[in-house]
Amino acid sequence: MHEIDFFREYVEKELRALDLSGQPDELYEPVRYMLSLGGKRIRPSLVLMANELFDGNIRDARGPALGIEVFHNFTLLHDDIMDKAPLRRNQQTVHTRWNGDIAILAGDTMFVIACQLMMQSAGKRQAEVMDSFLRTAAEVCEGQQMDMNFENREDVSIQEYLEMISRKTAVLIGCSLKIGAITANSGEREQQAVCDFGRNLGIAFQLHDDLLDVYGNTEKVGKQEGGDILAGKKTILILLALQDLDKEGCRHLLGILKSRQMGVNNKIQQVKAILTNLNVRGKAESLMDAYFRKALDCLENSGLPSHKTSPLRNLADQLMVREH
Amino acid sequence: MHEIDFFREYVEKELRALDLSGQPDELYEPVRYMLSLGGKRIRPSLVLMANELFDGNIRDARGPALGIEVFHNFTLLHDDIMDKAPLRRNQQTVHTRWNGDIAILAGDTMFVIACQLMMQSAGKRQAEVMDSFLRTAAEVCEGQQMDMNFENREDVSIQEYLEMISRKTAVLIGCSLKIGAITANSGEREQQAVCDFGRNLGIAFQLHDDLLDVYGNTEKVGKQEGGDILAGKKTILILLALQDLDKEGCRHLLGILKSRQMGVNNKIQQVKAILTNLNVRGKAESLMDAYFRKALDCLENSGLPSHKTSPLRNLADQLMVREH
Repeated sequence: MHEIDFFREYVEKELRALDLSGQPDELYEPVRYMLSLGGKRIRPSLVLMANELFDGNIRDARGPALGIEVFHNFTLLHDDIMDKAPLRRNQQTVHTRWNGDIAILAGDTMFVIACQLMMQSAGKRQAEVMDSFLRTAAEVCEGQQMDMNFENREDVSIQEYLEMISRKTAVLIGCSLKIGAITANSGEREQQAVCDFGRNLGIAFQLHDDLLDVYGNTEKVGKQEGGDILAGKKTILILLALQDLDKEGCRHLLGILKSRQMGVNNKIQQVKAILTNLNVRGKAESLMDAYFRKALDCLENSGLPSHKTSPLRNLADQLMVREH
Repeated sequence: MHEIDFFREYVEKELRALDLSGQPDELYEPVRYMLSLGGKRIRPSLVLMANELFDGNIRDARGPALGIEVFHNFTLLHDDIMDKAPLRRNQQTVHTRWNGDIAILAGDTMFVIACQLMMQSAGKRQAEVMDSFLRTAAEVCEGQQMDMNFENREDVSIQEYLEMISRKTAVLIGCSLKIGAITANSGEREQQAVCDFGRNLGIAFQLHDDLLDVYGNTEKVGKQEGGDILAGKKTILILLALQDLDKEGCRHLLGILKSRQMGVNNKIQQVKAILTNLNVRGKAESLMDAYFRKALDCLENSGLPSHKTSPLRNLADQLMVREH
């Protein structure tokens, strides 16, 4: 069994070998740019890992793996427009470097390319791969819409938040593993087991990300400390705090998050003080751990031999200890 | 054989019966709205007409027909954002009624739904339908990008313009017929014949649209006379004029088109005078007629019995005489 680094290299090589030389160049240059920005290539690697786990042939999983990565980058491209994000991985976003119209259209084209790659799977499994992929694609859109809805709401429940990150982030992790399993002709029970592992891991991963924003080591994490606070995002930490605060306390916290007059450091320090007072960190970590354990249980209960699932468990560990 | 009105009614009924009740409602309401705005439903009707032409079962063509219509509306939705269009079919566009972010995301969701419907075709033909659809979808994006590129160029050739409208408009008309033929298990030669008919008809149709903008009867056409002139669009009429004008004449015409100070009527009258002087109308009509005849030749040479192709020929006639 190979560890994730092996598959990551394979994905990088195959992505670079993709023919994205269509015309007009004004359309395909942003597509190539977006895919060249890098990233950890976790989702396509998961497709390939699940394919190997069920003794598949890597060539049957190549198309869907690349398709998942192109789709993921398409969602990032369109999300960047909506978030008005100037940078992605320390490089200009497509709508900043070119313009919003080109960013919309390059994204649409990436979605087409993702579907084309996804269709490059063995004949009879093609329909199953597409079915799983398209259902997930709709959920990712739904998750993004929920996220946008939450910006204007002050009464988001923990349950709703978990549903949102499940659709926006976790289902695609689960779908990657499921599709990999399909390309290896595994049975439905096995597909479900790795899919559930991925979904729970995806939720734990997002909660971890929320924690890192406030408690991570800025240098190692590689993004600005308190970025979510400055963006006024209702992360799991904020929602747990709101749950414990009285009406006046909630108004105070939401007021700080929305304030446009407060200085950057002051804003972060004040929010952090509230979170510390309520011991929100511990609660968020418990929730994250619960999903992490649930993910591992899915593998444990699948009946798959432990030496075969070890690369997936190693990956899960890696994702969770990230500079925390 | 049924005429297009029969299929149009079928499409309307099936579109209304589509389950688009997903959550969150903020995402699916704009999707339902966009599909409820109406339109002539030509593309899905063509899928069904080609299916009947080759003795197929209408149930095998239903999914792809609806998929083509949802895809077409997705492209309109995203194009409206790029064109900053306030109205579509006399109703507010999605980005005006809601906002740009929702319009991007609702469009993305419509693309997912289009693919799902497209996959609802008979097992072994599924891959062929998707292959044709996705290749066409990429071309439609390319055509839109070419159209945007042309806005900033003064040296667009007739050949380039024809290539642009071919990708942006004509290939989807051709693809609709081809997919209908595939769902009826027709042979490749037959698929190609109806596809070529559709492509040539699509180009003739777009040239006809360019002509109507200047020479149509406003009331009957149902859109503002000279709208393309006011938008500064380089239609076939403008390009034919530029071809015949000397350097100074070109500068003058392009200057009028770009002017933001001229009054609406003055602008239209001045451009019309230039076009009349050069007899550009006759040249554009000849070009349109050539593509129209080419379209009919494709049917003629296909070897298909004339009584079977008669609904397609009737439709072609209808499209060309539209209040002209």
